[in-house]
Amino acid sequence: MGLAFSPAEFESRVSRVQAEMKNHNLDALLITSPANFRYFTGLDSQFWESPTRPWFFIIPADGMCVAVVPEIGAPLLKGSWIGQTLSWPAPRPADEGVSLLSQALLALPRRYGRIGMEMGRESVVRMPLNDLFALKDSLKSTTLVDGSPCIWRVRAIKSCAEVDYIRQSCSIVSDAFDKLPSHARCGQTEREISQALAIDILAGGAHALPFVASASGAGGYEQFISRPSDRQIVDGDVLIIDVGATVNGYFCDFDRNFGFGNVADAALRANEAVWDATEAALAVAHPGTKVAELWRTMMDVLEPAGMLGSNVGRLGHGLGLQLTEPPSHMPGDDTTLEEGMVITIEPGMEYAPGKMIAHEENVHITRSGPVLLTRRAPREMAIITL
Amino acid sequence: MGLAFSPAEFESRVSRVQAEMKNHNLDALLITSPANFRYFTGLDSQFWESPTRPWFFIIPADGMCVAVVPEIGAPLLKGSWIGQTLSWPAPRPADEGVSLLSQALLALPRRYGRIGMEMGRESVVRMPLNDLFALKDSLKSTTLVDGSPCIWRVRAIKSCAEVDYIRQSCSIVSDAFDKLPSHARCGQTEREISQALAIDILAGGAHALPFVASASGAGGYEQFISRPSDRQIVDGDVLIIDVGATVNGYFCDFDRNFGFGNVADAALRANEAVWDATEAALAVAHPGTKVAELWRTMMDVLEPAGMLGSNVGRLGHGLGLQLTEPPSHMPGDDTTLEEGMVITIEPGMEYAPGKMIAHEENVHITRSGPVLLTRRAPREMAIITL
Repeated sequence: MGLAFSPAEFESRVSRVQAEMKNHNLDALLITSPANFRYFTGLDSQFWESPTRPWFFIIPADGMCVAVVPEIGAPLLKGSWIGQTLSWPAPRPADEGVSLLSQALLALPRRYGRIGMEMGRESVVRMPLNDLFALKDSLKSTTLVDGSPCIWRVRAIKSCAEVDYIRQSCSIVSDAFDKLPSHARCGQTEREISQALAIDILAGGAHALPFVASASGAGGYEQFISRPSDRQIVDGDVLIIDVGATVNGYFCDFDRNFGFGNVADAALRANEAVWDATEAALAVAHPGTKVAELWRTMMDVLEPAGMLGSNVGRLGHGLGLQLTEPPSHMPGDDTTLEEGMVITIEPGMEYAPGKMIAHEENVHITRSGPVLLTRRAPREMAIITL
Repeated sequence: MGLAFSPAEFESRVSRVQAEMKNHNLDALLITSPANFRYFTGLDSQFWESPTRPWFFIIPADGMCVAVVPEIGAPLLKGSWIGQTLSWPAPRPADEGVSLLSQALLALPRRYGRIGMEMGRESVVRMPLNDLFALKDSLKSTTLVDGSPCIWRVRAIKSCAEVDYIRQSCSIVSDAFDKLPSHARCGQTEREISQALAIDILAGGAHALPFVASASGAGGYEQFISRPSDRQIVDGDVLIIDVGATVNGYFCDFDRNFGFGNVADAALRANEAVWDATEAALAVAHPGTKVAELWRTMMDVLEPAGMLGSNVGRLGHGLGLQLTEPPSHMPGDDTTLEEGMVITIEPGMEYAPGKMIAHEENVHITRSGPVLLTRRAPREMAIITL
């Protein structure tokens, strides 16, 4: 398959995670989920939408990786940089790759008797639990333990090539947002406006558009994670659209607010407050800053501006092969920003009951400080006149 | 939130699954995965792309359902037909909804001491396993068992409204495929041609486009589950594009082949064979036919036509809120077609080493026989002249 990265980049990912695995006494890491499978193998497929067949990738403590995949996927992996590809004739519900996977795991050198899986924070094992329990039994004295900290640690630091794809995605969506005031009008529905935006994003070269959320209301919204609805925009509304588009699997994740006609002053002031909070966060988002400090910096702007609360629970997060990745900018997350991280800065505030204004930019943390990947929104809310 | 179905339809889904639960001695069903959560609650959001927060829905043996969701999602569920919505301030990694969920489950009447989860065939539990184990411990003597057969049994039979959405999706994509020969040309890449198709699909009114796969090669392809690549189409190529677009979450799933210039006779004949196999399957796809017989009917056409094999492993499957759903048309699947099912008919054959031709239509099984939801492809492969 054509890969978006050099074989050397995949080899580097594997050796970095192997270093983490040593710290956690793991004989192997067993990958089952789409983003991690793609991260380590380069597989570019949306076939994960079909729940019929599991896919497995084994990273041993040392030596050659092994892909254990259904026959339908074998042509994609054979001949790639991956050491070995094993496959079984799927579907085969009575033994959906489990015995083949078990053999491959049992064939590995056994030092600690521990195999890491995606069992922890922000991780999901993508195989039927019944099959996982059967696998566990077949491995006898080998224990399945949480390998997710090793994976997140490695994924958190992006290569230049990864950042480039995020930047491309941000750029395509920035262009589409800039164009929105030229076509969006009062009387249109959230869905119609978002549809035109989506077309611009695909025409701009995004490879996929896995996330479009939208909400609207007089002077704000109560949430902004639902799909665009058939609600018609009226005078005084604020419309937010939040977009996760991808280039080679790498997401942007940012939103923009659009006011229609006569928007309440309080909403406009809230929009300036979240913009100011972003500016304050950008001033301190350099290597060495803790994400909890980023949160505090933003709260120091939002609270005096009249923040009642926020149901989002954090003011930004990591970004990469998933729409959101650790860390979370909030108290209790002790992550320190490092060179190579990509994060969102995402202040939002409920300024009146049921009325929220949110704002988001995407940022690459470099040695010399934060570099914006999104085109910075203006401080004043874009207003679409009637 | 605006719902795509009447409250009565959701109530019917719940009471149907409660009837199945009685047969399996379940006190409750605990839902965690996107498609099942949407099926029972109506939630229309792509926020599942963020792995940070789990979402839970409890269907008790009798009585009121309970949604246990992160605060960010509560506004979407409150005021809907759902009995009760509980929420916790998320993210909160140390207790990401687990204690709240546990309380809600322990408050239910206990008859069998068994709670069903999405543990079996074609099912995944969408929460960190560490949290699942903590939940299990907190439930003490109550056992978590496989509830997926109850869910699939209910989801397999579609309502008229569900079929309508699949039909709309099929119709939009049929239109876009029909238009493809007017813009696709030799020298373009798979990605360019697929991008134009994707834009037509969104402009045609699809709500989302979660699956686009493409492959091309002289006279056929080795697989067709990867994303469109930067491979340029040349004279003699067959290009396949396989599309899963959605309307209100309901998928179409079908592909079309396009020949460019002088396509090898063997490829054209293979295309006719898979078309004929589809025709044969359509003749017998009525209630009472076993899906293994559908498979046999198609194989009786493909084998004499020179089928070497197929890495797909089945000749069609169920279709609905997911790109593929049970059953699988293959030996060993003992499902019998019933009124209300929606399936794909998907014969494919490797007619020469590494050269496959596949074909797919979507069908609603009615009392009076199969009704095509896709616009039937012509028997002859569409040829785009140079």
